[in-house]
Amino acid sequence: MSRYVIGVDFGTESGRAILVDTADGREIASDVYQYSNGVIDERLPSSDQPLETDWALQDPQDYLRTFQNVIPNTIKKSGINPENIIGIGIDFTACTMLPTTADGTPLCFQPEWKDNPHAWVKLWKHHAAQPEADLINSTAREMGEPWLERYGGKISSEWFFSKVLQIVHEAPEVYKAADRMIEAADWVVWQLTGVETRNSCTAGYKAIWSKSEGFPSKDYFKALHPMLENVVDEKMSRDIRPAGQKAGGLSPQAAEWTGLKPGTAVAVANVDAHVAVPAVTVTEAGRMVMIMGTSTCHMVLGKEEHLVPGICGYVEDGIIPDFFGYEAGQSCVGDHFAWFVENCVPGSYDQEAEERGIGIHALLEEKASRYQAGETGLVALDWWNGNRSVLVDVDLAGVLVGMTLATKPEEIYRALIEATAFGTRVIVEAFQQNGVPIHELVACGGLPEKNSLLMQIYSDVMGMPFKVSASAQTPALGSAMFGAVAAGKAAGGYDSIYEAAQAMASLKEDYYKPDMENHAVYNRLYTEYIQLHDYFGRGANDVLKRLKALKGEVLADRTRKES
Amino acid sequence: MSRYVIGVDFGTESGRAILVDTADGREIASDVYQYSNGVIDERLPSSDQPLETDWALQDPQDYLRTFQNVIPNTIKKSGINPENIIGIGIDFTACTMLPTTADGTPLCFQPEWKDNPHAWVKLWKHHAAQPEADLINSTAREMGEPWLERYGGKISSEWFFSKVLQIVHEAPEVYKAADRMIEAADWVVWQLTGVETRNSCTAGYKAIWSKSEGFPSKDYFKALHPMLENVVDEKMSRDIRPAGQKAGGLSPQAAEWTGLKPGTAVAVANVDAHVAVPAVTVTEAGRMVMIMGTSTCHMVLGKEEHLVPGICGYVEDGIIPDFFGYEAGQSCVGDHFAWFVENCVPGSYDQEAEERGIGIHALLEEKASRYQAGETGLVALDWWNGNRSVLVDVDLAGVLVGMTLATKPEEIYRALIEATAFGTRVIVEAFQQNGVPIHELVACGGLPEKNSLLMQIYSDVMGMPFKVSASAQTPALGSAMFGAVAAGKAAGGYDSIYEAAQAMASLKEDYYKPDMENHAVYNRLYTEYIQLHDYFGRGANDVLKRLKALKGEVLADRTRKES
Repeated sequence: MSRYVIGVDFGTESGRAILVDTADGREIASDVYQYSNGVIDERLPSSDQPLETDWALQDPQDYLRTFQNVIPNTIKKSGINPENIIGIGIDFTACTMLPTTADGTPLCFQPEWKDNPHAWVKLWKHHAAQPEADLINSTAREMGEPWLERYGGKISSEWFFSKVLQIVHEAPEVYKAADRMIEAADWVVWQLTGVETRNSCTAGYKAIWSKSEGFPSKDYFKALHPMLENVVDEKMSRDIRPAGQKAGGLSPQAAEWTGLKPGTAVAVANVDAHVAVPAVTVTEAGRMVMIMGTSTCHMVLGKEEHLVPGICGYVEDGIIPDFFGYEAGQSCVGDHFAWFVENCVPGSYDQEAEERGIGIHALLEEKASRYQAGETGLVALDWWNGNRSVLVDVDLAGVLVGMTLATKPEEIYRALIEATAFGTRVIVEAFQQNGVPIHELVACGGLPEKNSLLMQIYSDVMGMPFKVSASAQTPALGSAMFGAVAAGKAAGGYDSIYEAAQAMASLKEDYYKPDMENHAVYNRLYTEYIQLHDYFGRGANDVLKRLKALKGEVLADRTRKES
Repeated sequence: MSRYVIGVDFGTESGRAILVDTADGREIASDVYQYSNGVIDERLPSSDQPLETDWALQDPQDYLRTFQNVIPNTIKKSGINPENIIGIGIDFTACTMLPTTADGTPLCFQPEWKDNPHAWVKLWKHHAAQPEADLINSTAREMGEPWLERYGGKISSEWFFSKVLQIVHEAPEVYKAADRMIEAADWVVWQLTGVETRNSCTAGYKAIWSKSEGFPSKDYFKALHPMLENVVDEKMSRDIRPAGQKAGGLSPQAAEWTGLKPGTAVAVANVDAHVAVPAVTVTEAGRMVMIMGTSTCHMVLGKEEHLVPGICGYVEDGIIPDFFGYEAGQSCVGDHFAWFVENCVPGSYDQEAEERGIGIHALLEEKASRYQAGETGLVALDWWNGNRSVLVDVDLAGVLVGMTLATKPEEIYRALIEATAFGTRVIVEAFQQNGVPIHELVACGGLPEKNSLLMQIYSDVMGMPFKVSASAQTPALGSAMFGAVAAGKAAGGYDSIYEAAQAMASLKEDYYKPDMENHAVYNRLYTEYIQLHDYFGRGANDVLKRLKALKGEVLADRTRKES
């Protein structure tokens, strides 16, 4: 008899569920819910008070509505009897966090707090905690904190304690009123099971936790702010669960929301990118997984612990039990091409695309593919949104060199694709040179399906095969797989994520193979890229930072004069 | 009784005449003739044989047709009696040269030569003689030729002996058949007067002649090619006339073509850019004249002789008698903006411009003017067409730094304007630092009339007033002024170009004054520009040359495979 599992993937704008067969990972049905309050970055719902720049909040009610909509709809579409659905897993954006009461009620649900922006969910891309991140980093350096190196030497403003510290600084009353500070990932699992758990993935990658060392010391937290001294014991938990564990059984209330059986196994929470790794068959060292969309997240497993300068971090059990999960990132990939299309493509191209009934990206890809490696005479630094790995510097900006009066838009478009490929190669080489081998790339996400020129260029630049997930919903599939592990073999699931991956994950048969002639040309271009990368990115010429600083001065001066 | 003079300006696509009052330079009438064969860069007229890349030829018949059309039309439009027209001057693009017989007949007029491309006029922008320029430069360096430094250390592929040597290399039979090798400027004066003369402007700036040293030695020419040993004595002339001299009186045939009186004074030829200098009132040291169009030509007068590294050259009597005329250039100015508009402006902007009934450049100027100095966070190197001064390097290409996902097209447009202003400042400072003072800028040409944002940015970047010619036809006015000098005071003209300039030249009353607050910001951006300029242009990182070389290799390889 067939058994099924459900994976729920909470994205930035919407949440989606898929229902898959535990035997082979086949997708039976799926459904999507668009968050009714979306990304809150202008004003709070039912409030006129404008939010400051760089804020990005969400409404926890949207997460509950996701469960209440997508799970019943998916079950209905599938025609499957809920009796045969044995497990559920979820993945979430991270760090996306919120303050709650002791019973898990978000502070923003309470009338006395609902008008305070700090009572709401801080979304991963809430970027207003940079001063706090700076303090976290400088304090760690001063105190010689050993964990700093695990994160490439820098904690991001997006991460958990930057956001917590911003609440302490700007709304200490919210911090005091909150009994819990929790990742939204763990919060939604709590809502399903009635039991609070904390997962090792967000704890490790976003909250400075490690399996062997735990959290930073109380002394360190106290040095950041006296109120934070006991933050872990007072508002968090030291009981951190690895991926694949069962968090609990579905509560009667959640069963009512979803139409599933009470007691259905619920896996501990996971992060959207990390959960994709086993879902693209990767449960061993040497194959790097790339989630490619507006930005790219790179993940690779390793049996050994290594410090890799400039990566986002590594966490034991962070992706798969018994492996160190290494993570790096490029902050601008699809976003480059979106920017280019919006700002740099002549009207005649739009017209041609329209006349031929194809998209503008498809037209640009077609035109760009007529050029060979090295033929554009262009090289770019892919830093339109700063550099995450390996320079970890948000103040960097884009560079484009080699334009002539004969340069065409599609050549610049191609140069941007190549630049992101070179950016990935920098990351791959940083891993390789520091003891984390990589010999193959595996992609999932929006871009790989859409742009085969890009995929071939990556393969050529890297000189490696580049494979693609068979699933169009890779994170949701990964979550479903962890749901099957939470259910266990006895119930018709699996006893480990390795077994689940073996049965349920798969790649497309066709994949991109490197053209070694192009690879040789790209090796030469990559040498140029590296020279510019180091010149503009490692202090030889800090022009990009000075231009940004000057811009800031000019704008401040302008504001002063206008007011 | 009023006296009048005619100036004829031979441009790249057309020739134009203006008729002006000698008393005040007031324009009475004008006319334009579009060359019927235009720029010949694909195939010769009535021939199927394709020209090679980088070739650019013209038909001398178009120059005669210009006289036959524009002078009679101008006279007719003016209603002036030809009896009262006392002089005529011409200016031309340079180096634009052709081979002729002893009586001045162009070889390309002869049936036996008309199918040989080398028998035609090589236009200034004929760029196929780079190997010859390289040989001219390397031979000069090996032989320690003293004149090389006068030209900033490099002779251009556009110049006279590069073009002559290409004929010797590729069509020695044409070289042998030609009795004369002559600038088109001098050739058209010959056609008007029946007398061959050679002017000091083209001789000095384009043919390595100087008032004190003459031409390079026979030994040098022999070293270039044995056939060239006596090129000056056999095919040219050592009798070089300064601007303002009378070349001769109008021949009966030319009087018939033009409707002017036989014997009307004809001035020796001049170059379009150089003739503009007195026409914008500049007959003294310290004020730099800029002819701004697709490219910019910079000219400044000095009483003393100074070596200025990287300028195009300096010539005694080259612009105005008794002055050293210094020339520098930027090879891509208006061309930058034309490239940008063609390749980088989104369709929505075209639409907005159309809806508002304004040009796309006007729209971009309006949008760009909303930004302040330093606000875009961008800096560009204006090398889309290489760098003429002060790096003298055609292998350089464009650089743009500082882009973010928020960068708008108009910000890039503004950065390109600023880059060309910084490029001019490099030239101004090269002059200033080498004994040629400059304290004011004076502009003429197409751009200054069209783009006041650009003019203000130049003034701000330089911290200098920037004035503008009162005439929309500055070169033609300058030619007319030299026509008045050729006629002389006794005939109702002038005895010197100084007197002519005093009476006939003028500037617009309004001019651009530097905003010293912007100047302070631009000083900081200029420091960044210089650092990038030297890094990419002076050998620290020759990435631009390597990218160009790689592109050449890839294209050659592609051609090889496809054939």
